[in-house]
This record gives sequence, C-alpha cells and structure tokens, in this order.
Amino acid sequence: MLKIAVLGCGRIGCMHAENIAAHPRAALAGVFDVHRPAADDIGRKLGVTVFDSAEAVFSSRDVDAVLIATSTPTHADFIEKAVTAGKPILCEKPIDLSLPRVQRCAVAIGTTKVPIMLGFVRRFDPGHRAARDAVQAGDIGDLHQVVITSRDPGMPPVAYTEASGGIFRDMTIHDFDMARFMLGEEVTEVSAVGSRLVDPALMRRLNDYDTVTAVLKTASGKQCIINNSRQAVYGYDQRVEALGTKGMVVSENRRPNMTTLHRADFTGKSAPLLNFFIDRYAEAFMAEIGAFVDAIDSGQPPEVGFEDGRQALILAEAAIKSAAEGRTVKTSEIG
Amino acid sequence: MLKIAVLGCGRIGCMHAENIAAHPRAALAGVFDVHRPAADDIGRKLGVTVFDSAEAVFSSRDVDAVLIATSTPTHADFIEKAVTAGKPILCEKPIDLSLPRVQRCAVAIGTTKVPIMLGFVRRFDPGHRAARDAVQAGDIGDLHQVVITSRDPGMPPVAYTEASGGIFRDMTIHDFDMARFMLGEEVTEVSAVGSRLVDPALMRRLNDYDTVTAVLKTASGKQCIINNSRQAVYGYDQRVEALGTKGMVVSENRRPNMTTLHRADFTGKSAPLLNFFIDRYAEAFMAEIGAFVDAIDSGQPPEVGFEDGRQALILAEAAIKSAAEGRTVKTSEIG
Amino acid sequence: MLKIAVLGCGRIGCMHAENIAAHPRAALAGVFDVHRPAADDIGRKLGVTVFDSAEAVFSSRDVDAVLIATSTPTHADFIEKAVTAGKPILCEKPIDLSLPRVQRCAVAIGTTKVPIMLGFVRRFDPGHRAARDAVQAGDIGDLHQVVITSRDPGMPPVAYTEASGGIFRDMTIHDFDMARFMLGEEVTEVSAVGSRLVDPALMRRLNDYDTVTAVLKTASGKQCIINNSRQAVYGYDQRVEALGTKGMVVSENRRPNMTTLHRADFTGKSAPLLNFFIDRYAEAFMAEIGAFVDAIDSGQPPEVGFEDGRQALILAEAAIKSAAEGRTVKTSEIG
Amino acid sequence: MLKIAVLGCGRIGCMHAENIAAHPRAALAGVFDVHRPAADDIGRKLGVTVFDSAEAVFSSRDVDAVLIATSTPTHADFIEKAVTAGKPILCEKPIDLSLPRVQRCAVAIGTTKVPIMLGFVRRFDPGHRAARDAVQAGDIGDLHQVVITSRDPGMPPVAYTEASGGIFRDMTIHDFDMARFMLGEEVTEVSAVGSRLVDPALMRRLNDYDTVTAVLKTASGKQCIINNSRQAVYGYDQRVEALGTKGMVVSENRRPNMTTLHRADFTGKSAPLLNFFIDRYAEAFMAEIGAFVDAIDSGQPPEVGFEDGRQALILAEAAIKSAAEGRTVKTSEIG
Repeated sequence: MLKIAVLGCGRIGCMHAENIAAHPRAALAGVFDVHRPAADDIGRKLGVTVFDSAEAVFSSRDVDAVLIATSTPTHADFIEKAVTAGKPILCEKPIDLSLPRVQRCAVAIGTTKVPIMLGFVRRFDPGHRAARDAVQAGDIGDLHQVVITSRDPGMPPVAYTEASGGIFRDMTIHDFDMARFMLGEEVTEVSAVGSRLVDPALMRRLNDYDTVTAVLKTASGKQCIINNSRQAVYGYDQRVEALGTKGMVVSENRRPNMTTLHRADFTGKSAPLLNFFIDRYAEAFMAEIGAFVDAIDSGQPPEVGFEDGRQALILAEAAIKSAAEGRTVKTSEIG
Repeated sequence: MLKIAVLGCGRIGCMHAENIAAHPRAALAGVFDVHRPAADDIGRKLGVTVFDSAEAVFSSRDVDAVLIATSTPTHADFIEKAVTAGKPILCEKPIDLSLPRVQRCAVAIGTTKVPIMLGFVRRFDPGHRAARDAVQAGDIGDLHQVVITSRDPGMPPVAYTEASGGIFRDMTIHDFDMARFMLGEEVTEVSAVGSRLVDPALMRRLNDYDTVTAVLKTASGKQCIINNSRQAVYGYDQRVEALGTKGMVVSENRRPNMTTLHRADFTGKSAPLLNFFIDRYAEAFMAEIGAFVDAIDSGQPPEVGFEDGRQALILAEAAIKSAAEGRTVKTSEIG
Repeated sequence: MLKIAVLGCGRIGCMHAENIAAHPRAALAGVFDVHRPAADDIGRKLGVTVFDSAEAVFSSRDVDAVLIATSTPTHADFIEKAVTAGKPILCEKPIDLSLPRVQRCAVAIGTTKVPIMLGFVRRFDPGHRAARDAVQAGDIGDLHQVVITSRDPGMPPVAYTEASGGIFRDMTIHDFDMARFMLGEEVTEVSAVGSRLVDPALMRRLNDYDTVTAVLKTASGKQCIINNSRQAVYGYDQRVEALGTKGMVVSENRRPNMTTLHRADFTGKSAPLLNFFIDRYAEAFMAEIGAFVDAIDSGQPPEVGFEDGRQALILAEAAIKSAAEGRTVKTSEIG
Repeated sequence: MLKIAVLGCGRIGCMHAENIAAHPRAALAGVFDVHRPAADDIGRKLGVTVFDSAEAVFSSRDVDAVLIATSTPTHADFIEKAVTAGKPILCEKPIDLSLPRVQRCAVAIGTTKVPIMLGFVRRFDPGHRAARDAVQAGDIGDLHQVVITSRDPGMPPVAYTEASGGIFRDMTIHDFDMARFMLGEEVTEVSAVGSRLVDPALMRRLNDYDTVTAVLKTASGKQCIINNSRQAVYGYDQRVEALGTKGMVVSENRRPNMTTLHRADFTGKSAPLLNFFIDRYAEAFMAEIGAFVDAIDSGQPPEVGFEDGRQALILAEAAIKSAAEGRTVKTSEIG
C-alpha cells in the first residue's frame, strides 16, 4: 500500500483523496490545505490526518508520496520541495502558466530520480487509450492525421477564466498532451486560429478566445487538428480520431447508459452525454492513481512526466503566438 | 453505516463483500462460509471478522443485516432464521428451486416486518432502469409489448447445469422478473418453447433446453417475449425493449469503451461486449447494496422482495409446463 | 427486354408499372384494371397500351409476362389463366386468403413449367438479404434463433382491415415468408399469442388481433420469433436478427438520411424511419422486377414461387388455430 | 420536359446522360464528345442524337439546355458559347483551374440572364442538406464551427493528379463550397497546412500535397475546419458537422445497407462505406438535375451558380498561398 498525502482540498483534491482511499493498492496518508476548514472536512469524512503545513507533509515519515492539487501558482514550488524531500509526485496540470517558471523548475529538479507524474488524466481514459493502443499496435498502419474534438459544456465562472492563462494554456493544454500521446513524435509547427463567439465582450477584455482551432504538424508531416469550444450545450464533447494507412480508429463520446428512445418525432439516446469532467473521466482518474502506484512499485518512470507538462505548455505558447500573428509558429521559436 | 454480514464466500459472495466494504453507507460486519478457508481468504483480504457459524452471524450484535449468497438449497432456511433473529435480509435469487418449499417459507415468515430483499440485480442496471422509468413516466404511452433478449456467452459447467433446476428456473428467472418489472402488472398466461441446439446430448439427459422462448401475457393483453440462448459467442447479450402507444424505449448492450475501428474489411466496435455478468452488471450490483441500505434507512419495504421471488418462480413453473405440454399455461394453474 | 403487362392499377400496381418502365431490362407492355379510369391514368402517364380485359392481356402477342396486382380474390383465377396462356407470372401476395382455394389452384396448375413468382418483396431488401447471405455463407455458424420485428406505423383503414383475412394472413404472412427465407428449413410447429390493444373494439368485432407474437419451430429445433404490432408511432419497424453458433447478424431499420442532431435535451437521428412500405422497400421492389426478369432469362425457377405462397398461408392458418386454442399447432395438422 | 444535351461523354458525362434520361421532368436531347466513339456508345445505348460538334449543340432548336461535362480547360469556353446561344447551363466543377481565366469568363458573360448552375453536387446530398437545413432553421442556434471530413478512398491515377491543379483546386474545392453552403456568410481568412504522406515522392515532384487541413474564418469569427486525405482505406469518408449555440448537427457516412455482424472478435457493420463518389452521391446527382430543371421552370437563379464556382476557387488559391507561406491569407489578397 502506497501512502499518498493530498495537498489541496478543493473539488479536484477531494476527488483524488476519495479515489486514493478507495484504491486497493493505495492509502490516504493525510490531507493539507492552506484553507484549514477545507482540509478538516475531507479529513474528517475519510478519517485521516490533517496536516498543519505543506512542510509537515514533506517531512512526514508516514507519507510515501504526494499528490499536488493546490492552486496552479504553487505547483512548481511544491514540486521542487517534494523532490528535495524525496517524495514521488503526482501533480495536477499545468506545472505553471509561465514557461520561464517551468524552465526554472526544470533546472531546480535537474536529473532527480524522484518520480514526477503529471495529471494529464485523459491519457487514462479507456476509450482514448484503446485508440492509442490501436495506433501503437499498427491496427491503422502508419499514422497520418489525428482529429481531437474537445468542447466544454459551458463557460467556466468569470473569475476562473480571468485566472486561467487563456484557453490555450487552460483548456487546449489537455488536447496538446493528447496530440503528443497519439502522434508518438514531437510537434514542430503550430497554426492556430481563435474566435470570440460565446462571450465576445469578456473575450475581448481578456484578450482571449472561446472558440479555437489548432493544427499541429510533426517533422515527418503528421497532422493533428484540435477544435475547442467553451460551449457545447449538448454536453462535454470528447472525441479522438486517428487516420492511418490501414484505417481509422475513433474514441467516441460516452453516456451514463445505453438506452434509446424512439418516438414519432424523435429517435435517439434518452440520456445526455456525461456532462462534467469528473464524471466523464471518473474511470480515468482512478486509473491515473493506479498508474502512479505502478510507476513507483516498478521503479519505472511515470508514463507522463514533467517533460510532457513542459512540452504541452510550449505548444500552448506557440498557439497563442500563431493566433496573434496569423502565421505558423515553429516550436523551436518557443522552447 | 449499516453493518452487513455476508453468508457464503463463493464468487458472488466475495463480490458482494467487496462492494459492501467499498460502499459509502455500508460496512462489512463479517463473513461466513461452511467451507472455512473460503471465508478466511476474503475475511483476511478485507480485514473483517470471520464467523464460525451462521448462527453466530444471526445472534451477533454487531450485525445489522445479512446478505445471503450461500448455495440455493440453504436460502429458505437462512431467510427463516434471519427473520426470527430480526435481521434484514438481502438474498441472492432464487429463494428455492422448489415452489412448495418457497410456499412453506412464505408461511413461516408470515407477515413479518423484517425487510427482505431479493437479488434480482438487473432491476438496478442504469440502462434497464432508465427504460422502466421511461415507461412509468409515460414516455412511450400505454405499454403493449416488451421484448427481452437475454443470452449467455456460453454454457456453464456441466455440474452447474445439472444442479441448476433447468434453464427456466436458473436463467430465464431473471427475465421473468425483468418482465414483471417492465410490465407493471401480473402475468396470467405463459407460452414457452424449448429447443436443444447448443448441447443436445446433455440437454436430453437432463430433460432441459439450451434455447428457449417464452411469451407472457397479462390480463389486459400486454405481451412480453423473452428469448434465451445459453451460447452467444459475441458476448453476454442483455437487451430490453418496450413498445407503447407513443413510442419505443430500448436498453442496449454495453461495452467497456466506445472506441470504433474502421478498416477496409471491417467497421465496428473495437471492444467486445462486457462478457461476464459481474462486469456487465457491476454498477447494478453496487446500486443494489445502496437500495438495500435505503430501504432499511427509510423504513420502506425493499422495491424487490420475497413475493417477487415467488412470482418469478411461478412463471418458471408455468413455462416448464407449457414447453412440456405444448400449450399455453395459466399462472392460476401453478400458484 | 421482357415485355410485362400489369393487371391491377391500384397503388401497388401503379408502382410496379413505373418500376417496370424504368427497369433497364424490362418494358411495360400495357396495363389493365376493371376500373377503366385507373388504368387510363397510369397508361397515359407512362404512354402505354390500356387493355380492355384481362383476357386481352393473356392473349396478346406483345405481352411476354404478367404482373398480377389486382384484388386478392382474383389472384388464383388470374394465375390459372396466365398459366394456361403460357405467360410467366409475378403475383402479389397472397395467392388467396383461403387455403382450400390455394390448394385447388395448385392442382389446376399442376406441374406447369410456366414460371410463377410470388411478390414476397422483403426477400429482396438489401439489408435482409445481406443477413440471409451471411447465414448461408456460414458467417454465424449453425443457425439457432431468428427474431423478426415487424410493426406497421398505424392501423390500416377499417375497410381494409375487414377484408384483410386477419393480421396473420395479411401482415404476419410477410414474416412467415421471411422466417422460411432465413431458417432454410420447414417449420413444423407454430405457437401464437394474440392481443387486442391498439383498437380493442374493432378487433373484438372482427375476431382479430392487432398485436401478435408467433414462435415457429423446425424439426431440428431452430426457432423463429415474430412480433407484430399494427401501431408503431415511431415508424415502420422492420428488423431481422439471426443467432448462430458463431455469432449474430442483424438487419437494422433504415432512414432517409444519416443526419443526427445533438441538443441539450436530445441526441439522435434527425430523420424518422422510412415510414411507408413503398418507400422502405423501394430498392426491394425494383430488385424484385430484376429477379423476375433474371428467372425468365435464365430458365431457372423464380427463387420465391407458388409453393412459398402456399407454405406461408399454412403458417398463417396454424397461427390462427394456435392463438384461438391456446396450444402449439403442428403444420401437419393444416397442410 | 426540359430537353438537355450533354457535352462530354466520359464517366461523369455518361452518368449525367443516364440520369437525365431517367428523370421524370427532363429529356436527353443528345450527346457530344470530341472523341466521337465515346458519344456514339452512350448515344446508341440511350437511343439519342449524337451531335457532330459543340456548335451543333448550341445552335440546335431541339436543345433547351446544356450540361457541360467536358475536360476542365474547355468549361469556360463552353459557358461563354452557351450564354451567347441563350442555353441554360449546368457545368461540372471547376469553371477553370486558373482564376484569371474565371475572371475573364465572368466579364464575358457579364450580367447575362441565362441561368448558369455549377455542379457542386454535395449540396444536394440528403444528409448534408438536412444538416444545412437544420442550421438554417435555427435548430442549433447561432453557428460557431463547421467541421468537414472529406477523404478519398485512394489516390487517383498519376495522370489525373498531374493535371488536377493540385489537391486544393481539385479535391478541397468541393469542401470549400460545402463550407460556404454551411456557413452562410463569406470566408475572409484561410489558414492551410499540407503534408506529403500517402505518396511523398509524387507530391514532391508535383509540389502538391496528399493530406491537408484548411481552417476558414468569416468576418464574424465563424470557423470551418476541413480535413482531407487522398487515402482512407476504409472508404470514401464524407462527413459534415456543425456546432452552434443550441447544439450540433452531423451528417454521417452512408453504407449500402444497415446490416451488422456480431462475432466473438468483431461487432460492426457488415457492409463497407459506399466507396465511389458516383455511388455515394447517386441521390445527389439525380437531385441536382431536378434542381436545374426547377430553376429554369421557376425563372429563379440556380441555387449554386457561377459566382459560387469563382468563390470556391478563390478559397483554393488562398489555401495554396497559405500552405506555401506558412501564414493566414486574407481572401481579399486573392479575389
């Protein structure tokens, strides 16, 4: 049993804490939050230690590993401290919104052997993974094009949007990682287009977009097309498609049940899409904990690590620049 | 937290024990099996008491309720004992293979207020339940026909088949309950047809069938058509369809993921059907525990009880008689 | 070019006339109807001869073959006359509503070599045929069960229903033929159940049913389950499913286009089922003409002939008897 | 009956000739081809006049309208001649591969009242049209994003590719028109990315691509993403998706039948996609003839005309420039 402490007891931290508590090969070593009442609530509910400080977590002998789910600006600091303390890390994305800060963090941790895993949870979705596995197994031959459709059900709260770093760093970042996961080789060029259609006034104020398309290309010419919208009223739309020389594989959307209704004016699914990321990726979040435990047990590096977080941010920076300048941006201009 | 003890530590008992242990509103009070090592294994794994006898379970103050997952011939005895002990019961189907034994058990428990729930787990499947809810909500108007397709992936072991009581009592019993769940009124007539196609020699020896169709009719004329096969090599086929004056609702099959593969010679699902009843109905088994806890917490009778178990067995007896005599059998001839 | 004359210029006759006119290997030799204006209309529209009498058709040198689409009571007479005249026949189903009349017709035509094809059009549907071909090719191994769902969008006019001979002779007759098409061996036993749910008053008056299930069994035990309703408000529901030792094949419903609509409260097909048998089986009706021409060109007997019409009627008679008497009826009791 | 003559008796011209001959409101006035034997073959088969020259067609009193299906370099000339002769025109796309030639043709025909329709056949596909109609009816609210997937089954012959004008002018041109059809407002910016993956050597030699993505944007910010590949071995992949403020509509792929096969190792469609554009768009080609007849009968301009052909070519030119220069190109730079 790997004893994992959770830092950050917001919505995602609490979900991770419950998943760790329920996982057959992990145990919840305790929780911490700068806002003590939040930590107390979940600590009491799950019957675990509430730590007084992050330092107390890092120095505790009863903590084998840490899951970092605090606010984004603290991620890099906590990664550095956990590395110093020798505690394996599962950190929510992103490492930081600032690429220079990420670069400094990379320097600080150097060539540490402490396992660091980044929370790009979609890699652990059974459907997306089955698609990636089909690609790797050669089921579709040589890969040519990947199409990622990724649309949120609706705009997040304004305060969230203001602090998000913009759609490319906040939302598309998941798709940039999915692109790298599917493509199997590094992206060298990014062409992005942004529009303000869902909430034009807010987007203009923030110099942000709510509807974007990014086209990525690798050195060998493989393409990945990402389309994002902040508003898909029919539900959280999460699809991944890959075309190759021998065929196509598609990870389709999921619903809570497979019931269909047929009426004079309607034939279709009676249940809407799983509409909230925690529901949609429930299996993936649990599998992510398992993958973290596996990495530590096996001594192998986690399959998605610090460098993956850095690369996804580089693609976000390239997309921001591309959309702003109306030109294809090479990733070598960024990293 | 409702403290539930599990009697019977075979495959299904162990699954229930794990579900109870993981359920947020239930606790596993201990386990018992006549074969002590089986109880020891799961007791050790889950860190709970292993009882020495069934009597020890029924008399324990630390047991709020019991889940009976022992061999079928012991069900009725344990139900009677648990009622005497005042312990609420969740009992795996069937109550007994013998209708007279079930009738005696009914007399023995009389008008007890001890909650008794029968493990007709399919009622708790999200898809089938959504279909039933659509019917009850009037989404398809007045109900006319129900079609239940229920096919096992393959023949069970010979020893199991020999002791099963025959396909109607063992396999169709689930569909008889599903029919009653969907129809919302009692069945009055049963017409059944049996064939020996999968393993004719074994079926002749046991005077049993491996491929059957049963057509049920209610007093108002509503029909339910059940088709069963012991062998669907494409997977565990579990579908429920209901036709009414305003439309149709269908609970379709489920797969572990929603990935499709498209090749020159193939377009389809890349994943097979969920192929084992414990996987297929995993959500339903967990929901069943929740429904049991709810019934006890609320003081309401469980939504599927002893009488439902008795009625399903009456339909099985009617079907056996119908298939043997080549005629429609009224349930009033049986019960 | 095979010159075919059409007898009967009602809805179906006119459709056949247009199909023959449009067929690349057939020509419309003329039309006839006892109600002269009906024949004049379609004759003028298609620019062909309008015959004064059926006799004029049978004796015409310009007529190579005849398509009989007159009212049912005239079918047997016209078949006998066409045989006498040596004109190959494509006759709409049924041969007659009276089995004795069909038997007399069989005697009258004896061992004629004149090709007689029965209009069981569903055999020519691309989907149903692909399913049958999969069965014959061994794609699903040995056949065990066939399930035919066949529901009309709504009740026909009362006058039609009164003269129809009852649901088994009028509607299920198509499914009896489909059963024989799929099963590939003769049915020996029929168990049928009828209900009065759509229009109980009318059904009682006519001693008919509007909702029926028939279970057919062959000597080797293969089963075919047919379910019919006179009212499926979601559209003309036409499905055929076959289960065998190696898998299942399903011919699904068809829609005019493959467009789906996804909204907050709805995900599904934006187009309803093809709702009228002439639209649903448009391809099949055209293919039927082609099969008739092929049979005559090749000198081979048509793949669906007089005996198929007689056998389907025997199954209808058996089903009527079974539903009335509440017992399984052997076809040997009928034929 | 509108008497239409067909110029050009290649594969597409012959298909159009047969469609006109079969159309209830059109008649085939004759055919012409510079390669006389090609015209003779189809003329004999359909029993129509074979013209000696294009001039003979334009001057014939028996010709109400012309369908131009000759080689691309002759289109603009024939359009000019037909306009001079006052014959309404249905011309296969493109008008010409050279935008300057198209501009000169525009000047030549000036403000002619002679109806000119461009053969962008996909607009007449029932599925794509149902999607467009749903957008126009407001079913998905305000339009935000269109995604067009358009992939050929395999590379055309080398000679065809060499003369095609490149993938953007030859293949994407259909999608540029579909984008305009769906968007309902003009595109102002084009960002395109090209890769050489299917046949890199040929593509390098021709300075062409076989795998491309184009992202179009309108003045109001609406986006259309087109992805093309010359090689989809699973079949001719033709999908159109539109996202709006109230939902999404998708025109899915089509197959020749709706039969599915379910085996131990396979669940899916037993029939491949309709794999050849003439089969896939068979209904659309026939509907196109109907729309041409309707336009002439009603005196309304055809719904897809000369200017649509010119605009699609402008988008192709912008895409070529964008892919070559690695930047977003404004359509105002081209037109």
